[in-house]
Amino acid sequence: MKLQTQQQLKAPSISNLGRHILAEFYNCNSNVLNNLELIETSMVDAATECGATVVEKNFHMFNPYGVSGVVIISESHLAIHTWPEYGYAAVDLFTCGDSCDPLVAYEYLKDKLGAGSAIYTELQRGMFDGKTNQVMVSPFQIKTHID
Amino acid sequence: MKLQTQQQLKAPSISNLGRHILAEFYNCNSNVLNNLELIETSMVDAATECGATVVEKNFHMFNPYGVSGVVIISESHLAIHTWPEYGYAAVDLFTCGDSCDPLVAYEYLKDKLGAGSAIYTELQRGMFDGKTNQVMVSPFQIKTHID
Repeated sequence: MKLQTQQQLKAPSISNLGRHILAEFYNCNSNVLNNLELIETSMVDAATECGATVVEKNFHMFNPYGVSGVVIISESHLAIHTWPEYGYAAVDLFTCGDSCDPLVAYEYLKDKLGAGSAIYTELQRGMFDGKTNQVMVSPFQIKTHID
Repeated sequence: MKLQTQQQLKAPSISNLGRHILAEFYNCNSNVLNNLELIETSMVDAATECGATVVEKNFHMFNPYGVSGVVIISESHLAIHTWPEYGYAAVDLFTCGDSCDPLVAYEYLKDKLGAGSAIYTELQRGMFDGKTNQVMVSPFQIKTHID
């Protein structure tokens, strides 16, 4: 497949299968970041808040500190990795379809983690041509937002 | 925390906690994309191949087709979502530390999925200042590579 140009990507028949938000949360509440139950609840609730359907979840507590976890949703996944020692959490929110808005999950988690500041970038995944019914080889469409 | 400039980011004391590869695989083998056992095995093996330690795994088959799954590793996670009807898979490979190279997992999966073409972008996660022992608020460092 040939690489699509920016102009072609703006054609009305072009859409993206998914939206992938990658977020960095800084100066968070370290006690929250090191609490598996709180992190798991926050992530599951963030999924529900943003309109997603939770399918599976898996969270793990590391030694001496830190939590990693993923919520698989019908619409893809939400993932988190925390560094309580730095007050930092790396989050990614990948949703597909129109029923979810990953930015709702982003705002929800920023609040629950007590983040002092945050930054996110949004990638469009799976550029789709409705005319040919195919996913196109396409450079990533990336937008960065600083809170 | 003030926003760090590009110049400051090149200081020797600056490093990143993790590397996050987001990959699009096109024209894959649709039978593989729709086979949960094959996808799960490929993802777990990709994790091992790239030097990661598998902690948990969770894979789900969707109706009528498509597989979603995540491998949580000590070093963060590998995730995949497949669209067999389009021969397309969205993958993300997030690793931390020096013992893993997520690009090894990328190449391994490109082969196992039978991808005709692929594109990936790499984000540096958690910019860390070794002098202050803090994670810095920093714009994403993003590099895109087209195979």
